[in-house]
Amino acid sequence: MMTVITLLTDFGIRDGYPGVMKGVIWNIAPEVQIADISHTIKPQNIQHGALALARTARFFPPGTIHLAVIDPGVGTSRRPIGLHLGTQYFIGPDNGLFTLVLERAEENHEHIQVVHLDKPDYWLPEISNVFHGRDIFAPSAAHLATGVPLEMLGTPILDPIRLQIPRPESIPGGGLRGMVMEIDTFGNLSTNIEQSDLLNMGEVSVMVAGRRIDGLVTTFGDRPNGTLIALYGTSHDLIISVVNGDAARTLNVSLGDIVEVYPL
Amino acid sequence: MMTVITLLTDFGIRDGYPGVMKGVIWNIAPEVQIADISHTIKPQNIQHGALALARTARFFPPGTIHLAVIDPGVGTSRRPIGLHLGTQYFIGPDNGLFTLVLERAEENHEHIQVVHLDKPDYWLPEISNVFHGRDIFAPSAAHLATGVPLEMLGTPILDPIRLQIPRPESIPGGGLRGMVMEIDTFGNLSTNIEQSDLLNMGEVSVMVAGRRIDGLVTTFGDRPNGTLIALYGTSHDLIISVVNGDAARTLNVSLGDIVEVYPL
Amino acid sequence: MMTVITLLTDFGIRDGYPGVMKGVIWNIAPEVQIADISHTIKPQNIQHGALALARTARFFPPGTIHLAVIDPGVGTSRRPIGLHLGTQYFIGPDNGLFTLVLERAEENHEHIQVVHLDKPDYWLPEISNVFHGRDIFAPSAAHLATGVPLEMLGTPILDPIRLQIPRPESIPGGGLRGMVMEIDTFGNLSTNIEQSDLLNMGEVSVMVAGRRIDGLVTTFGDRPNGTLIALYGTSHDLIISVVNGDAARTLNVSLGDIVEVYPL
Repeated sequence: MMTVITLLTDFGIRDGYPGVMKGVIWNIAPEVQIADISHTIKPQNIQHGALALARTARFFPPGTIHLAVIDPGVGTSRRPIGLHLGTQYFIGPDNGLFTLVLERAEENHEHIQVVHLDKPDYWLPEISNVFHGRDIFAPSAAHLATGVPLEMLGTPILDPIRLQIPRPESIPGGGLRGMVMEIDTFGNLSTNIEQSDLLNMGEVSVMVAGRRIDGLVTTFGDRPNGTLIALYGTSHDLIISVVNGDAARTLNVSLGDIVEVYPL
Repeated sequence: MMTVITLLTDFGIRDGYPGVMKGVIWNIAPEVQIADISHTIKPQNIQHGALALARTARFFPPGTIHLAVIDPGVGTSRRPIGLHLGTQYFIGPDNGLFTLVLERAEENHEHIQVVHLDKPDYWLPEISNVFHGRDIFAPSAAHLATGVPLEMLGTPILDPIRLQIPRPESIPGGGLRGMVMEIDTFGNLSTNIEQSDLLNMGEVSVMVAGRRIDGLVTTFGDRPNGTLIALYGTSHDLIISVVNGDAARTLNVSLGDIVEVYPL
Repeated sequence: MMTVITLLTDFGIRDGYPGVMKGVIWNIAPEVQIADISHTIKPQNIQHGALALARTARFFPPGTIHLAVIDPGVGTSRRPIGLHLGTQYFIGPDNGLFTLVLERAEENHEHIQVVHLDKPDYWLPEISNVFHGRDIFAPSAAHLATGVPLEMLGTPILDPIRLQIPRPESIPGGGLRGMVMEIDTFGNLSTNIEQSDLLNMGEVSVMVAGRRIDGLVTTFGDRPNGTLIALYGTSHDLIISVVNGDAARTLNVSLGDIVEVYPL
C-alpha cells in the first residue's frame, strides 16, 4: 500500500512552489501518492489553515502524512515539528497550525507524539531562510514515508504552540453567541457553533446580520431558490446559506461577524 | 495497470473538499491514480459541468472512472447514479450532468448501463445531507475501482435526467444561429456550432456582437496580433478569438450571446 | 521507480485542459506520476513560463520529464522540441520557453541534446491546430516515459530559440540596475539581481519605487510586521518584501519596474 502525503499551504497555485515540494518528496520517496488539500489558504493565516486541516485530515488513510506549511515565522527561531496523532502524521511549523487536530486526538485519547525536527541529516543539504517547505518539511515528510521513524527525525517535545480558536459563549435567553469562521466557494457561512452545542436547545432561531432564521432545514433543496436557511454543514457545524445563492454577498457578512442562536 | 479516477466539481480549490474526496478514495482503493479535471466549474452550473465532461472524458484510458459532482440537489430525492458508457464509467448526481457523454455513447452505439446507486453498503457509514461527493460518490467510485461491478452498486434504471443543451438553428439566407457556450481562460469564445454543422456551407462569414468575420483560419498564428478570427477549436467547435488577445473582453460578449454563420 | 512527468501551462484550471493531457499520458504510460507545476502562467507569457521552469525543475528526480506548454504559436511553423539537459527532459514548443534551463545546463557543462519532434508516430492519430499540448506534447512525453529514446522522437537540432532575459547592468556609483521580474502570491517582488551579483559589494542599499532599504535581512521574521525589507529569495535572487504584508501593493510596483542596488 502506497503512503499518501497531503499538502496544505498558502503558496498559491501560480508560482510552482507546491510542485517543487512534490519534486523534493519524490526524489526521496518515489512511491508515495501526493494529494493537494489546498494551496490557497489565506496568506499567513494560521487559523484558516488549522480549520482546513481539521476538516480534511481525518478522511485520509491510516499512515497518511499531512505536510502543512502556513509559516509566517519561516527562518526565525520557531521550531519545525512533526506529530504522530492517532494513525496519522503531521509535519510543519510550530505555530499553532496543528492545534485542532491535536485537540481532537486528545479528546479521543489517541496516541500522541510530538518532535522538534532538529536532525539536519533528513533535510536538503542547503537550507534557505525563506522556504522551509522545500528545504526541511518536504524532505522530513518524505523520509517518514520511506519508513524512518518520527523519533529519528527529531527530539520529543511536550509544548507545541496552540492557537486560541474562539468558541461560542452563552448569552441571556438561553442562547449562544458564535461567529462566522469561514466563507466557502458558494458563499456559505460556516460558524464555530457545532451541532453538539445545540443538542439540548430544541428548535432554534438563528440571528445573523440583522436577519432571523426560524428553524433549521436538513439540506439546501428543502427550500426554494433564494431562501435564507440554516443547517448543519459537512463537519457538523452550523452553517448559513442562501439556496442556490451566495449568503455572504446577500447578507454582506465578513469573517468574525456575530451569529446568535436562541431557543425558538 | 492502475485505474484512473478523475474529479470534476464546483467545490473550488481553497477549502479542501476535493482533497477530502481523494482521502476517501485512497482509503478504499489505495492503488488508483487520481486526476483533477476541474474544481472551478461555475457553482451549481450543471450545463457547464456537462460540457467540461464531454470535452475531456474521452481522452482518458479505458476503465477510467469519472467522478463528477455538480450537485445543487444534494440531500434531496435526486438520485445518485453510476453509468457505464463504452469503456468508461461515470459517478455523480442524476441531474443531467452526464447528458452529453450519454448522448455520445448512444450516437456511437456503445455499451450503455445506468444504475441508481442505492446500496449504502458501498457508502461511508455516516451520510451527511450536504456532501454526497465525500459520503456517497467518492466511496462508490473507489469500490468500482477495486473491482466491484457497477450492478452491485445500484439498481438498473433507464431514465436518467437529461439536460436540454441548446443546438444551433437554421435562419434565412442558409445560415445557422448558435450561441456562445463557453469563454475560456484566454477569452476565446466557444460556440455550440460544430465543424460538422458547416460541412456543406463552403466559405462562411461569422457574425458576433455586431462584428463580421469573413472566412475561417486554421490556427491563431495565421493572423497578426489583435486580429479577430474564427476557427475550429479543440473539440471541433466553432470558436472566435483575438490573436494573442481576449475576444470576450474585446467584443464585450457574454455566455448565451448570439453567433450567426452565413455562406460567404 | 516511477517516472515523473510535470505539467507547466497557461491553460488555467477551469476548463479541464491539463486534465486532458493527463488522460493522454496515462493512456500511453499508465505508471507515471504526474505533478502540476502551474497552469496559471500568464497567458502566452513565455518569459513567465521560463522563469517558473528554471525555479522548479531542478528539484525533481533524475529522469523527470517536464512538459511545458506556453504556446502562442501553436499550429504555425514553430517547432515542437524535446530536450535532454543533464539528468532531466523537457518537452514543449520551440519559442524560448527552455532558455533558462538550457543556459544552466550549459553553465554546468551538463549533457545537452535537443531534437525537433517530427515523428508523428509518437503523436495522437488526429492533430488539431490549436491544442498541441494534448495532440503532440503529451503523447511525446508519455512515450519518452515508457522508454522510447529522445532520438527516436525527433531529429537533432542545434538552434533552439532563445529568449533575451534581461540582466542587471552596472550604474555609476558602483551599483547595479535590475528590475522586478515576478510578483508572487504574497506580493513579494522578485528581481533579476542575484546573490552572486552582489558578492563583492559588501553592505548595500536597495532603491525601489522611490524608497530606500538599507541593508539586507536574513528572513521575514527579522523585522516587525509592516517593515519594508530586502533579502535573498528561494532561488538566491534579491527580493523585496513587506513583513506579513504585500510589497507590490504597498509600493504600487509592477513587473519591469526598476530596482537599484548601491554599496552602503
